[in-house]
Amino acid sequence: MTKYPPMGWNSWDCYGAAVTEDIVRRNADYMAEHLKAYGWEYIVVDIQWYQPTASSHAYEPFADLTMDAHGRLMPAVNRFPSSAGDRGFGPLADYVHSLGLRFGIHIMRGLPRMAAHRHLPIWGSGYTCDTAADPNSICQWNPDMYGLRADRSEAKAYYDSIFALYASWGVDLVKCDDIAREYPRCEKEIELISGAARNCGRDMVLSLSPGPAPLERAEHLKRYADMWRITDDLWDEWKLVKAMFERAEKWCIHSGPGHWPDADMLPIGALRQCCPGKGWTRLTHAEQRTMMTLWCMMRSPLMIGGDLTLNDGFTLELITNPEVLRIEKESWCARPLYTLDEEAVWLAPRMDGKGAYVAAFNLSDFERVIRVDQPGERPFSTAKELWTGKDRDELRAELPAHDAAVWRLQW
Amino acid sequence: MTKYPPMGWNSWDCYGAAVTEDIVRRNADYMAEHLKAYGWEYIVVDIQWYQPTASSHAYEPFADLTMDAHGRLMPAVNRFPSSAGDRGFGPLADYVHSLGLRFGIHIMRGLPRMAAHRHLPIWGSGYTCDTAADPNSICQWNPDMYGLRADRSEAKAYYDSIFALYASWGVDLVKCDDIAREYPRCEKEIELISGAARNCGRDMVLSLSPGPAPLERAEHLKRYADMWRITDDLWDEWKLVKAMFERAEKWCIHSGPGHWPDADMLPIGALRQCCPGKGWTRLTHAEQRTMMTLWCMMRSPLMIGGDLTLNDGFTLELITNPEVLRIEKESWCARPLYTLDEEAVWLAPRMDGKGAYVAAFNLSDFERVIRVDQPGERPFSTAKELWTGKDRDELRAELPAHDAAVWRLQW
Amino acid sequence: MTKYPPMGWNSWDCYGAAVTEDIVRRNADYMAEHLKAYGWEYIVVDIQWYQPTASSHAYEPFADLTMDAHGRLMPAVNRFPSSAGDRGFGPLADYVHSLGLRFGIHIMRGLPRMAAHRHLPIWGSGYTCDTAADPNSICQWNPDMYGLRADRSEAKAYYDSIFALYASWGVDLVKCDDIAREYPRCEKEIELISGAARNCGRDMVLSLSPGPAPLERAEHLKRYADMWRITDDLWDEWKLVKAMFERAEKWCIHSGPGHWPDADMLPIGALRQCCPGKGWTRLTHAEQRTMMTLWCMMRSPLMIGGDLTLNDGFTLELITNPEVLRIEKESWCARPLYTLDEEAVWLAPRMDGKGAYVAAFNLSDFERVIRVDQPGERPFSTAKELWTGKDRDELRAELPAHDAAVWRLQW
Amino acid sequence: MTKYPPMGWNSWDCYGAAVTEDIVRRNADYMAEHLKAYGWEYIVVDIQWYQPTASSHAYEPFADLTMDAHGRLMPAVNRFPSSAGDRGFGPLADYVHSLGLRFGIHIMRGLPRMAAHRHLPIWGSGYTCDTAADPNSICQWNPDMYGLRADRSEAKAYYDSIFALYASWGVDLVKCDDIAREYPRCEKEIELISGAARNCGRDMVLSLSPGPAPLERAEHLKRYADMWRITDDLWDEWKLVKAMFERAEKWCIHSGPGHWPDADMLPIGALRQCCPGKGWTRLTHAEQRTMMTLWCMMRSPLMIGGDLTLNDGFTLELITNPEVLRIEKESWCARPLYTLDEEAVWLAPRMDGKGAYVAAFNLSDFERVIRVDQPGERPFSTAKELWTGKDRDELRAELPAHDAAVWRLQW
Repeated sequence: MTKYPPMGWNSWDCYGAAVTEDIVRRNADYMAEHLKAYGWEYIVVDIQWYQPTASSHAYEPFADLTMDAHGRLMPAVNRFPSSAGDRGFGPLADYVHSLGLRFGIHIMRGLPRMAAHRHLPIWGSGYTCDTAADPNSICQWNPDMYGLRADRSEAKAYYDSIFALYASWGVDLVKCDDIAREYPRCEKEIELISGAARNCGRDMVLSLSPGPAPLERAEHLKRYADMWRITDDLWDEWKLVKAMFERAEKWCIHSGPGHWPDADMLPIGALRQCCPGKGWTRLTHAEQRTMMTLWCMMRSPLMIGGDLTLNDGFTLELITNPEVLRIEKESWCARPLYTLDEEAVWLAPRMDGKGAYVAAFNLSDFERVIRVDQPGERPFSTAKELWTGKDRDELRAELPAHDAAVWRLQW
Repeated sequence: MTKYPPMGWNSWDCYGAAVTEDIVRRNADYMAEHLKAYGWEYIVVDIQWYQPTASSHAYEPFADLTMDAHGRLMPAVNRFPSSAGDRGFGPLADYVHSLGLRFGIHIMRGLPRMAAHRHLPIWGSGYTCDTAADPNSICQWNPDMYGLRADRSEAKAYYDSIFALYASWGVDLVKCDDIAREYPRCEKEIELISGAARNCGRDMVLSLSPGPAPLERAEHLKRYADMWRITDDLWDEWKLVKAMFERAEKWCIHSGPGHWPDADMLPIGALRQCCPGKGWTRLTHAEQRTMMTLWCMMRSPLMIGGDLTLNDGFTLELITNPEVLRIEKESWCARPLYTLDEEAVWLAPRMDGKGAYVAAFNLSDFERVIRVDQPGERPFSTAKELWTGKDRDELRAELPAHDAAVWRLQW
Repeated sequence: MTKYPPMGWNSWDCYGAAVTEDIVRRNADYMAEHLKAYGWEYIVVDIQWYQPTASSHAYEPFADLTMDAHGRLMPAVNRFPSSAGDRGFGPLADYVHSLGLRFGIHIMRGLPRMAAHRHLPIWGSGYTCDTAADPNSICQWNPDMYGLRADRSEAKAYYDSIFALYASWGVDLVKCDDIAREYPRCEKEIELISGAARNCGRDMVLSLSPGPAPLERAEHLKRYADMWRITDDLWDEWKLVKAMFERAEKWCIHSGPGHWPDADMLPIGALRQCCPGKGWTRLTHAEQRTMMTLWCMMRSPLMIGGDLTLNDGFTLELITNPEVLRIEKESWCARPLYTLDEEAVWLAPRMDGKGAYVAAFNLSDFERVIRVDQPGERPFSTAKELWTGKDRDELRAELPAHDAAVWRLQW
Repeated sequence: MTKYPPMGWNSWDCYGAAVTEDIVRRNADYMAEHLKAYGWEYIVVDIQWYQPTASSHAYEPFADLTMDAHGRLMPAVNRFPSSAGDRGFGPLADYVHSLGLRFGIHIMRGLPRMAAHRHLPIWGSGYTCDTAADPNSICQWNPDMYGLRADRSEAKAYYDSIFALYASWGVDLVKCDDIAREYPRCEKEIELISGAARNCGRDMVLSLSPGPAPLERAEHLKRYADMWRITDDLWDEWKLVKAMFERAEKWCIHSGPGHWPDADMLPIGALRQCCPGKGWTRLTHAEQRTMMTLWCMMRSPLMIGGDLTLNDGFTLELITNPEVLRIEKESWCARPLYTLDEEAVWLAPRMDGKGAYVAAFNLSDFERVIRVDQPGERPFSTAKELWTGKDRDELRAELPAHDAAVWRLQW
C-alpha cells in the first residue's frame, strides 16, 4: 500500500508515443542525481512502447505491434535495444533499480486486436485470445486493442498472464489506460486488473487513466486502485490548471493512504520534445507555483512531465522545495475554505497536531491581496510562507496573477 | 425510382445468418409460381453470406470471412456453390431473373476488419483499405466490419468498388445495415453509399437498416434512400406489432414514390428454420391481418420473413388478397383518424378520387365493436370489407382481440 | 361540431388587453359588410375585458377585476357600456348576431384570486370559491387567477356556473387560455371545461391556448376541444412564420372535422393600435401570402389579428381570395411532400376526388424557382395558380423571397 | 458570526403549524433547567404563528392571517396571548432571554398575498406591498405568501421593515423558509434577506430552509447564511437518516465558523403532539445514536424536534452526553474515510492537535463488526468510546443494526 502519494517522472508530456530507452535512462540518471533525495522515485514509460513505428504523440491505425506468441505486447526492439532476445523491460527495470529508483510502464486495457484475429493462445492457460476479447469493446482514441469480456475466465487468464510477465521484468508501477472514466462498462475489468496486479507476486502500484473518473464511484476506485485520474489530460494551459480547483474540491475527501485521486502529470519544463520545434511549458512561474501548491495540498500524486535533463534552474527549484513537498507527507484532511472565481484558500491540518497548512491562490488575471483570517478556530504562533521562506505575522499575500502562497502554521 | 413500395422475400427471419443457395432457389421458385402474379418480386439474401461457418442467427467474433484481394466480401462457396470461380452472386441473380423476379443482397456498412489490418488494395484505385477504414467506427451488434472515414476519397473509392461488383452480378436491391439509425455519425456514409448505388450503372433499390431511423432526418432519408427502417427488428410478438402504430403515425406523411418508410419484414409462416425445433410464427391469424392491414395502409414495403415453401393455407391467403394488396398501389395520403390504447382507425384516400380506404384496428385484448362515422366529410355509396369480401352499409366491425377490418369505399 | 375550421376576427393583436365595445362593434360591422360572404363569421373579444384599468398589451398585478357576487368575471362597464346593469356581454352578442355573425370571448383557466380570498359562493351550488381554487396553480404570465382543483366537484360547479352565464349571454366561441400547453397538470381541467361547454345548453366552439400544445396528447385534444394552439403567440416576424412549417408538419395528420390544430391568429394589417405610434404588420406581402397558403393547406382556423376597419387594399384582397379560402373546405389529408431549409412543398387531395392542391413555398431569402413533379402518382389536366389566377401547364413558380404559390389541380 | 453550530429546540416536529405560547414557555423552562448546561440555547417558534386557525401540520388555503397595517405578519393573539396590544413576540422573547436562552422564529420568504391585494403601505417607506410582490412567485407547498421582486427597492424596503420589527422584539434567530433550494430564482432574495438581517441592529442567526440546497451554490450560501438545510424534511424514518450519509459526505467540506450545512431537526422523543393519537419517534435507540453521531461529526446544527417536557430517560441521555456534544466544538475538517452500503467510517481531527475522533456506523440491517485501521497515518495512545464511556485498545465495535460507535483518540 502506498503510504504517501507516488512521485516520479513520466515520458508522455515530453516524448508522447515515441519515447526510447536512451531517453528513459538519461532521465533516470538525472532523477537519481538531482531528485531522489527529495522523494522522487518512479520512472514511467508511457504508451506505445510496443510500436516500432511510433514517432510522435499521434496513434497509427492498423500498425503492426510487437507481441509475443501469446498476444502479450513486448517493447519494440528498435526503440528499446536492451529488450532484444525476448528480455522485455527486464534489463531497463534492472538499470532503474540499480539507481535506487522504481520502474513503471503504461498499458492499455484489453489485448491487441490482431492477437484476437490470429486466435493466439493465452499464456498459462488452454484459452485463445479471441475468446477473451470483446469485438465491440474498443477505445475511443487509440486503435490498438479490444477490451476483454470480464465475465469470462479467459479474460482473467489474459490479465494474469501479462502481470506475470511484468512481475518477471521487475515492474513497480502499472498505469492502465482507457479505463478510469469507463464506468460502468469497465468496472469488472478494473477488478480483474486489480486482482492480477495484487496477485502477481510483486508489489505494484496500480494507476488508472484517463480521467475524469466518476466521483460517484469513488469507493470502488479506492478499493481497486492506488491512484486514478480525476481529470482528462492536463496540459500547460492556465485554464486547465484553474479548472482543477473544482475537481480537487470534489475529490479531496477521498485522498488517503493507498488511494490517491490524481490530478495528472505536471506539464513543466521541456515538453513535446518529439514535435518539430520542440517545446517548453507555457505555464508561467506563478502558474507552476499554483499547480505545485494545489497538488501538494490535495495530496495528488506528482509525476513530472518534462524531460528532466533539460530542466532550467526555476524548474529544478520548483520540484525540490523540501518544505512544499513535505505537505504531501505531513498533512491530512485538506479542504478548501472557499473557492471563488477570483481566489481560493485551502486548509490542511498537520498530522502531528502541531499546526496546519494554509494555501492562498490568486485565480484572477490581476494582482490581488489575499488575507486569511485565523483558520481553524485557533490562533497560531508562527507562520512561514514556503515559496519565499519568510516568517509572517499574518496570513496575507500580495500575489501576482495566477500565483499562490502557502504557509506552514505552528500553534 | 420505386413507384410503389417494394414487395418480396428476405431470408433473415427463417434462416438468419445461415441461408444457403438451395434455400434461396426454392423460395424463388415458389414466389414465381404462387406470388408473382400478386406483385411480389424481390428475393433478398440477408446477412453473413460471406461467412463459411455461419449456422444460426448468431454472429461469430473474429470469423474468417470470404473476400477477394480487394477486401470485397464474396459469397462463401460452401454455402453458395454457384459462386465458385469468383463468379459471386452472378449465377444466382441470373437464375432469379430467369423467373421474372429481382435479386437483392444484404451488406454491412464499411469494410471487413481484416481487409484493413492486411492493408489490402481498394479495387480501381491506388488506395488501401486501411486508409479508408475508421478503427473506431464499429457496429454495436456485429463484429465483422470497420466503418469508413466518409470524408476521405478512399471511402468513396471503396463503396464504388463494391457497387461496381454488385452491378456486375446483376443485383437489384441492396439492404445496407448498421446505418439507418446511426445519425449523425453515418450521415456522410449514407450519402456515399447512395451515390455509389446510383452511379453503378444498374438500377438498384437502396434499403437502409436497422431502425429506428430518426424522424427528424426524414428529408435526408427521403433524398438518399428508397426505403428505410422505422423500427428495430420486428419479430412475431403482438406487442411489437402494436407498437408499430405509433411509428406508423409519425412516419406516414413521409411515404411516397421513391421513399418508403419501412415497418420491417412480415414475420409470418415458417420462421427460425435454422434453430433446433424450428419455428412457426407466434402471431395469431387476427394479429397477422392487423399487421398486413397496417403495413398496406401506411404503404410500407412488404418483405415476407417466413420460408415460403412451408406456407400453410392461411399464410398464402393472407399474402395473396389482391384487394388488400391494391391499397399499396391505389391509396395515398394515409393517416390515422385516431389512435387510442384500445383501438385505432386509419383513413387513406384513393388516388383515383373515387373513394377511400378505412381500416379499423382492435388493439385491445378483448372483442370490440368499432364504428367509424362517415370519414372525410363526404358520404359513400358502397363499402366493401376486404378481408371478408362483404359489402356493408355502415363502417362497423365486430372484431376479435387484435383483429382488423378494412373497407374500400366508393363515393 | 365544427365541420370546417372556424374563421373570424380577434381583438388581441390590435388592441391587446384594452379592447372596447366600440372597437368590437366597428369590426363586426366591417366583417358583415366586407368579409361575411367569404366565410368569415366569428368576432372574438380577447383577454382582460373584466379589468377597468387595462390600457395596453401588459397585465397589471393585483388589479381590481369586475366580478359578480359569485366570483364570475363581468365586462368592465367603462369599457363595455352595454354590459351595465349586470347584462354582461348579452347586448353585444345580440348585436353581433344581428349582423349574421357569431360572438366569442376569451377566458383564463380558473377563477379570480380575490374570489377565493373573499370566499365567494359559487353560483348554483352550496360551495365557495376558496374550496374550488388551488392556491398553487397560477398562470406564469398573467396575475389574475387561481387554477381549480379539478378532482373536486367544487371545480366542476364553478366551470358549469361560468358557462351557464356565457350561454345566457349568447356566446358562440370560448377561447380558454393558460391551458393548452399545461399538460399534464391541466388535463383534468380541460375535461371539466369541455364538459361545461358541451352541457351548457348552447352550441359553443372551444378553443384552447396558448401553445405549443404537446403533440403526444393529440388524441386528448381532439376529444375535448374544437381547436387548440400548436404554437406560442405568432407575431408579425418572418422567422415565426417560417417556424410554423415544422409544427404544421407534425400536426397536419390531426386535422379534421371537430378538431383543428390552430396555428394562431394572422398578424396582418393594423396591429398594436393601443401602443404609442400604433403599428402595421411587418410581414411583407410575400410573407403574408405564404402564411395564408400554409394556414389554408393545413386547415388551420383563421382568425384575423388586425383592426379590420383599417385594412388596406392588399389586406382585404388577401383575406377575400375565394379560391384560396376554398382549400379550407374542400381539401383533406394534407401533408408536406418535403420540407427543406430553403423550400417546402405541400400536397392536399380534394375531397371531391377530382384533383388536388399543391403549394410551393420559397423559405429562402432569395428569389427561387420551385418545380414540383407530378404529385400523387397521377397526371393532372389543368392547374390553376390561385394567387395569380393563371392556368399553368406545369407546377413551376418563380417565387420572390418568402413567397408562395398554390395550384388547384384537376385530374 | 456563529463560532459553533447552533443548538436548540424547534416546535415543528411536535406541534406543526399549531404551536402556542404555553408550549413554547414550557419547553424553554425545560431547556433552561435540563439542557442549557450542555450548550443548548435556542428556542424556535416554527411556521404559521400568525394564523389564528392553525391546528395541525397542514396549511389552510386562503386563511385570514394576522398582520399589521404594513403587511407584516404578527403573532395570532389567541395562540400567543402575550402578543396582545401589538407587542408581537417581544414579551415571549423577553421571557426566553430571562432564562438565559435565545429566541428564534420561522418566516416564509415574501409578503402575505392579501397585503399585496390590499395595496398596504410598506413600513418606513413610500412604497406599497403590491409593488414589492411578484404575483407569479409562490411557494409550492404553502399558500400564504407572494415572493418579492428582488430587483426592486420596494423588496428591500419590505425585508428591512420586517427585520426591524424582529430586532425590536429581540429575535436572535430567523429561520427563513421556501428559499434554500430555490436557486437560481431566489438568489437575490437571499441576498436581500441576509442584508436585512445583518443591518437590523441586532445580532441574528440566519437559517435557510428547506433543503436540499444546491451543492454547487455552496459559496453563496456560506456568504449569505449562517446555516442552511442540505436535505428535505427529515422525519423519524431510518431510510431518511441513512440517506443523510451521502449528503453529509458532499457537504462536509463546507462546514466551519459562520456557515453550517444543516442536516435538519432531530426527530426524537415526543413528536406530532397536535395529531390524534399523538406520537413518539419511530427511530430505534440505535438509529438515534447513529443520527446524533453523524450530526456531531459533520458539525451540523442540532435542533431538537420533540416536545422536551415529555422526554424519557433515553432521550435526555442522548442529548446530554457531554463528550459526544464536544465533537461539535472541538473537531474540524471531518470527512468520511469510506461510505459503503453496509457501513461507513468518519474521521475528524481535533483542533487541539492532540488526537482525533473516529465514528463507525453500521448501516446494515444486521449486527456487524466494524474495525478501523489506525486512521490518519499515526498511532494513538488511548481511544475512548463515547456512548459507552469505555477505553479501548483497538477501534473495533460490535454494532447492532443501525447503531454507531464513536471514539475519541489521544495521540
